[in-house]
Amino acid sequence: MAENAEINQVTKQVQDVVLDESGQPLSKNALKKLEKEKLKKERAEKDAAARAAQAAAKASAVVDYSKDFYGKKPMNRSEDRPGLKHERFNDINASRTGEKVWIRARVQTSRPTGNKMCFFQLRQNSSTIQGLVVFDETKISKQMVKFAQAISSESIVLIEGTIAKPLEPVKSCTVQDAEIMISQLFVTSEAQGRLPFNIEDASRPEADFEREDAQFSKVSLHTRLENRVFDLRTITNQSIFRIQAGVCRLFREFLESKGFLEIHTPKILGAASEGGANVFKVKYFDTDAFLAQSPQFYKQMVVCGDFERVFEIGSVFRAENSFTHRHMTEFIGLDMEMAFEEHYHEILDVFDELFVYIFKGLEEEYAADLEVVQRQYPFEKFQYLPKTLRLEYKDAVALLRENGVEMGDYDDLSTEVERKLGQLVKEKYKTDFFMLDKFPLAVRPFYTMPDPKNPKYSNSYDFFMRGEEVLSGAQRIHDADFLIERAKAHDVDPDSIKSYVDAFRMGAPPHGGGGIGLERVIFFYMNLGNIRRVSLFPRDPKRLSP
Amino acid sequence: MAENAEINQVTKQVQDVVLDESGQPLSKNALKKLEKEKLKKERAEKDAAARAAQAAAKASAVVDYSKDFYGKKPMNRSEDRPGLKHERFNDINASRTGEKVWIRARVQTSRPTGNKMCFFQLRQNSSTIQGLVVFDETKISKQMVKFAQAISSESIVLIEGTIAKPLEPVKSCTVQDAEIMISQLFVTSEAQGRLPFNIEDASRPEADFEREDAQFSKVSLHTRLENRVFDLRTITNQSIFRIQAGVCRLFREFLESKGFLEIHTPKILGAASEGGANVFKVKYFDTDAFLAQSPQFYKQMVVCGDFERVFEIGSVFRAENSFTHRHMTEFIGLDMEMAFEEHYHEILDVFDELFVYIFKGLEEEYAADLEVVQRQYPFEKFQYLPKTLRLEYKDAVALLRENGVEMGDYDDLSTEVERKLGQLVKEKYKTDFFMLDKFPLAVRPFYTMPDPKNPKYSNSYDFFMRGEEVLSGAQRIHDADFLIERAKAHDVDPDSIKSYVDAFRMGAPPHGGGGIGLERVIFFYMNLGNIRRVSLFPRDPKRLSP
Repeated sequence: MAENAEINQVTKQVQDVVLDESGQPLSKNALKKLEKEKLKKERAEKDAAARAAQAAAKASAVVDYSKDFYGKKPMNRSEDRPGLKHERFNDINASRTGEKVWIRARVQTSRPTGNKMCFFQLRQNSSTIQGLVVFDETKISKQMVKFAQAISSESIVLIEGTIAKPLEPVKSCTVQDAEIMISQLFVTSEAQGRLPFNIEDASRPEADFEREDAQFSKVSLHTRLENRVFDLRTITNQSIFRIQAGVCRLFREFLESKGFLEIHTPKILGAASEGGANVFKVKYFDTDAFLAQSPQFYKQMVVCGDFERVFEIGSVFRAENSFTHRHMTEFIGLDMEMAFEEHYHEILDVFDELFVYIFKGLEEEYAADLEVVQRQYPFEKFQYLPKTLRLEYKDAVALLRENGVEMGDYDDLSTEVERKLGQLVKEKYKTDFFMLDKFPLAVRPFYTMPDPKNPKYSNSYDFFMRGEEVLSGAQRIHDADFLIERAKAHDVDPDSIKSYVDAFRMGAPPHGGGGIGLERVIFFYMNLGNIRRVSLFPRDPKRLSP
Repeated sequence: MAENAEINQVTKQVQDVVLDESGQPLSKNALKKLEKEKLKKERAEKDAAARAAQAAAKASAVVDYSKDFYGKKPMNRSEDRPGLKHERFNDINASRTGEKVWIRARVQTSRPTGNKMCFFQLRQNSSTIQGLVVFDETKISKQMVKFAQAISSESIVLIEGTIAKPLEPVKSCTVQDAEIMISQLFVTSEAQGRLPFNIEDASRPEADFEREDAQFSKVSLHTRLENRVFDLRTITNQSIFRIQAGVCRLFREFLESKGFLEIHTPKILGAASEGGANVFKVKYFDTDAFLAQSPQFYKQMVVCGDFERVFEIGSVFRAENSFTHRHMTEFIGLDMEMAFEEHYHEILDVFDELFVYIFKGLEEEYAADLEVVQRQYPFEKFQYLPKTLRLEYKDAVALLRENGVEMGDYDDLSTEVERKLGQLVKEKYKTDFFMLDKFPLAVRPFYTMPDPKNPKYSNSYDFFMRGEEVLSGAQRIHDADFLIERAKAHDVDPDSIKSYVDAFRMGAPPHGGGGIGLERVIFFYMNLGNIRRVSLFPRDPKRLSP
């Protein structure tokens, strides 16, 4: 058959070239070379064995009555479109027993049983189902069973099979009341070389690794990130990023219902916005430009342009040379800015409802995904109040002092003290989420509106989840001259922010807002230990790839 | 009253400091200085007159019985929160005649009538209403009328007034069946200095400027962009950016309904993705990094990570040194990528439905905003087919040749020829939107899947609106070795794209997608002449500010 000829050709290509590359990124060239040699040898041996088996089969002139029903498919180049329906596992269950279906899936694991059977755990996103290849005298040849047994984990297969009801529920799969009796089996994309780690190991509950009889390897965060594309396939990661998309959707849904407009502000700026610290410099044709550290100035300018309530979901860049569990050099900001009528607490009211909407939405719409993450990384259920606690800074300082923390009235909070405060608040108010209002003026940026009653404080706030900051915001100064005065007091050259300051000269409403770190919300909601887990491809001072 | 004392104090502040800054950005320092001097003089004269008037009033010991009901408010620093309801114009109509309301609005124009009356056109976003201050013997003093008459355009006022039914509809306002009889009038933020242009001029239909008796100035795009915050206040711009947000919403809404997941990929990359041309370089701590020219590689990697259908709305950066009507160095990409089962035309099917959903959604949900834009920038209604035309490249070349365009079978299309093709398609198929499929392989990037039947062509496509490209996409090569082969043929060093290539080594489904330029869709849908009109703060090689 022409198809078979093509299959052989492609198989050969695949076999030849896998030797060029190990598939596992190793840091040292020497190690890499050694590994390559080893793989090459293994592969050559395997190939020789395969060829011998093939030759033996041919020599004995055994007719393979299944030969058209299995094999490697050539690369799909969109040759034709037969229009077969391809099923998703979520739609398969016992009620469809007896139906013949086509399925594209990954082989998560295969378990050969003698030379007459092969069990597969097949995967689509985070759903798994059991598939079986079983020898019979007329349709499934021993050669076909052998082919099935040799398919490498993580290869993609195209299967024709019949839905069957297993004798007892398949506990190891998400689809438990149905399995697939395979009648045709094609590899459409083969996983080459050695896999960087075992997907099942990478999905195990943390506690499993602490058992004394643990036989498997713990996959470090570093290894995961080095092999991120592979790592994303674990069901936990599938769930984490569905939850992330959910937070974005809930954020938008709520703000749109309150009359907010989605905007997009520039990320390349002519001047370093907030004084020039921690900003990335870009070569911009014949001049220099800078990456936006926040959309704040532009959000404010848009509010002055009469779009009174706006939000933006976009990239934020911070050139901070730090390697903490909660810092990245690039992240997604969920920003909002609004004009208010009387008092900046109108902004806190919107944020309050917004966060409660997001927390509730996660509980209600993402329960299954949270459960999946929970199994691998157990976390205490996130507690919040229907009306969010608003704590004034001075009262937080008092609470800390009562509990042995020594600090001045106007000192900033260190990460450590923030965590302590989170604990104390949790004990006293039974909440993992609260707003800290009225920060000391001295620890906030120049554009922050001072408190009208006590010039040592300001109309600004941070929000905390499990004792870690997830939002920073304030009433902004909307008077150009007062803004210049404050900029000078902070050694910010007013000329460097002229277009920003000018925005307030032609009539500006009182306004304010804040920026939420998307990854932080998810990170702290599920208490995942490191922010890198919730970024598809995290960036820190040492990580620019993949 | 304490409040009045404060008002006076702030008024004085405002008067003192407006002299420091002209409010109108001028390019030359000398000019600026002159302008400043002039304004200073004008202001000083005005102040003197005001003081004289005040003094005269005091001298004649006329009691101002309105004095508590008007004046300049101090900057709002969130002193208190009385909890007054502030009305939006959209909620005001004749049925509420007699109701007393509080309103925050801009003074768009004021028209004094003698010394006893002042008409205002008040604005909130793109709604306007008429407000009146009318002298009476007990409540509205002549001083108050005088104060009203002196309020500068674009200042923000806080008004208490009574809803009234005008004798005849107020044709010049969007709220025509109601007006506001003002009883209290405070300026909360004053527009200082000379306005960069007249908001009404900036909102006029283009045709008005061609009338022989035209008395007003046309506002150039350059002037608009130099004063963008001010320019955004025109009702046309309010509508344009509501439409833009609408396109984003419709894009997401449709793709989410089809099982696509929203993702966020990094914008700072360790290597220049597509060969290094037109890429911005970033100083990244001790090394160099690059800004993403497209999320394509990462979208593909995420598909290989088993998120089979993904989309992203994010910033895209292109270091192209060009100044056309349709290029910017930074824009918003609406990107999607998906695994398919049999044929890349499955992707075209999704895009087809998606675009029709967006076009229909704009017609149905944004009719009022389109009408507003239409009034200033008249455009022919955008035509599209319920099932989008798919033209093969070779047929497009034939059509062009039939109509006198000379070109080879495998030549790329110039912008000019694209437009010509758009016209020919419109004549023949009655549509402003079509898909051009099967581009010559030679004019596409290395990762494009060649056509399986004719190696001179490829499985790639562009979409056109009114003869201009709005999307580019393709089936991508999902086999690592073939990808390396094609990269080498294009002089792309495979080592420079290692993490991308490696993503295909562990089993990859056939897949493809495309990137839509958000601004282009809106630009061409409304035929706005220049893409800068549909970007809040456009960036080109010479424009980095505001």
